[in-house]
Amino acid sequence: MRLSVDRLREISVTLLTKHGAPTDHAHLQADLLIEAEMRGLPSHGVQRLPRVLSRIDKGLADPQASGVVSGRRPSFLAIDGERGLGPVVMMRAISELKKIVSDTGMAAAGIRNANHIGMLAYYAEAAAADGLIGIILSTSEALVHPYGGTDAMLGTNPIAIGIPTGADPFVLDLATSLVSMGKIHHHALRGEPIPPGWAVDAKGRPTTDADAAKNGAIAPFGDAKGYGLGLAVELMVSALAGSAFAPEVHGTLDETHPANKGDLVILIDLAAGAGSSNALSTYLDRLRNSHPLNSERPVSIPGDGARSRRAASIAAGIDLPEELFNELHALAAA
Amino acid sequence: MRLSVDRLREISVTLLTKHGAPTDHAHLQADLLIEAEMRGLPSHGVQRLPRVLSRIDKGLADPQASGVVSGRRPSFLAIDGERGLGPVVMMRAISELKKIVSDTGMAAAGIRNANHIGMLAYYAEAAAADGLIGIILSTSEALVHPYGGTDAMLGTNPIAIGIPTGADPFVLDLATSLVSMGKIHHHALRGEPIPPGWAVDAKGRPTTDADAAKNGAIAPFGDAKGYGLGLAVELMVSALAGSAFAPEVHGTLDETHPANKGDLVILIDLAAGAGSSNALSTYLDRLRNSHPLNSERPVSIPGDGARSRRAASIAAGIDLPEELFNELHALAAA
Repeated sequence: MRLSVDRLREISVTLLTKHGAPTDHAHLQADLLIEAEMRGLPSHGVQRLPRVLSRIDKGLADPQASGVVSGRRPSFLAIDGERGLGPVVMMRAISELKKIVSDTGMAAAGIRNANHIGMLAYYAEAAAADGLIGIILSTSEALVHPYGGTDAMLGTNPIAIGIPTGADPFVLDLATSLVSMGKIHHHALRGEPIPPGWAVDAKGRPTTDADAAKNGAIAPFGDAKGYGLGLAVELMVSALAGSAFAPEVHGTLDETHPANKGDLVILIDLAAGAGSSNALSTYLDRLRNSHPLNSERPVSIPGDGARSRRAASIAAGIDLPEELFNELHALAAA
Repeated sequence: MRLSVDRLREISVTLLTKHGAPTDHAHLQADLLIEAEMRGLPSHGVQRLPRVLSRIDKGLADPQASGVVSGRRPSFLAIDGERGLGPVVMMRAISELKKIVSDTGMAAAGIRNANHIGMLAYYAEAAAADGLIGIILSTSEALVHPYGGTDAMLGTNPIAIGIPTGADPFVLDLATSLVSMGKIHHHALRGEPIPPGWAVDAKGRPTTDADAAKNGAIAPFGDAKGYGLGLAVELMVSALAGSAFAPEVHGTLDETHPANKGDLVILIDLAAGAGSSNALSTYLDRLRNSHPLNSERPVSIPGDGARSRRAASIAAGIDLPEELFNELHALAAA
């Protein structure tokens, strides 16, 4: 089922307003989902919308809330998200921080009690578009085992970094898990094994059985180093946001618990630094033009692929699974 | 040749003062080298001292300089290191930032024109000891190829993160390269091959020949994700410190060029956050006690291993290669 970006946005905004979201909040939440679709990241796309709506209906998400500052220092805000929609609370925090950063050169906010913020690249891009380095960290349910361990003790703890350059921004967005749980479910659905090293089963045994891995734990990316980074995210976010640690985190994926994970955003004014953003884009072009390992696949810069997929989606529309389209249609008719 | 930590410190301080370092600067530079030895990181230990001394003698390092603030915003300092010793300039910057952070909650400094700062964990620990989250990033000569590329275009771009907890601090210190060039040289010296995937040769061909890899490029850790993080370090440091990009960086390892790499340090006051440091240590203990993959190797937290190696060194002393001891002895007699 192919839909134009505009049509998909209209459907999403209509559903969100019908469930009580003010127009601006509905547009922001819809934008997060649709921008993920446009970049080829359907796991963070409109397939999440029915869950967002049901969380609103159950009072787990308050579509009117945008968060309040519960603790303030000149360059740091502790924010209580008041069960608001993740994108609404995060963009409100970024907007507050931008006012601070124009004076102080840098600032950060720790956010607790907000719903899922979706694709982190969105916020990294928003920072870079305003001449700011943006670092966004978030926590999640326990899905990842420590390096050398087998229990699911850490979240997938993504890291996004946006950096303005003289040309297109650098936009990095990665989970500190080796793969997503979505990818393991995808293998299980198709009855395919997963490669060795991806996951352990519920008893902590290394497995290539995707079904067994669903109840186990995913490996961190990059062995001990990726584990260390994922753990650093877990600790920094929890310490600064005042949010729960992975084993106690709920409300990101389910429809029964309030969201108690945390988010952290750090903004730095590139203009405060001694470097030049034009020098960054010149260096990135040298990287793009450096020798590739495979002559048919030029060296790529984080953000390049997403940008070209986004452009293609605007031109050609977005392919939505028939089932998902029908689900959204039924929700609209309900 | 086994030496006590105190004896090694005395030798190092004496040599540095003899070459013109004020006592406090000599102690700081020596401390960096000796703390690395104590943690089992001889690549960042006293084997670097002869090079530091020769850089001082040639005017490439000014042992008296400690850096000046060249640009100031309330929470950001741009620092010109004035060719100072890396540890002297970095600890001076951290000391300035601490004054700021106690008010603003967070602050950062970009440093250019300072010499090699050595083991980054040192600064992460120094931050954590004062109740601060410390994030330290640094760049280097081009030694690492992009993911999907074969040219040495990035530095080894280490990341260190120190986080205070209710007990021992969390101290992460990792290079964004898969291995160090030192490790490749070590294999070459012993005539041993390197594992597939570690490096490419000077012509960009994947190789297991350690000698060929010495003139090639090392892989980033963690494939595309580690590449993205190493590149983010390269861009953030260069933009904020105003330092050179890897292909133009010199003066970290050689004895002919001024150091033109950059360093970035971000400090955040844990007390500004909404969390509790005791909660962090409780969670870390749960991780240490979680199921290990191998029952003889408990799950470890970044910083644990270095801490126990340090304690062992204090008790038993440090093993210095005979050749290095003789070199230091000759320098002292010269």
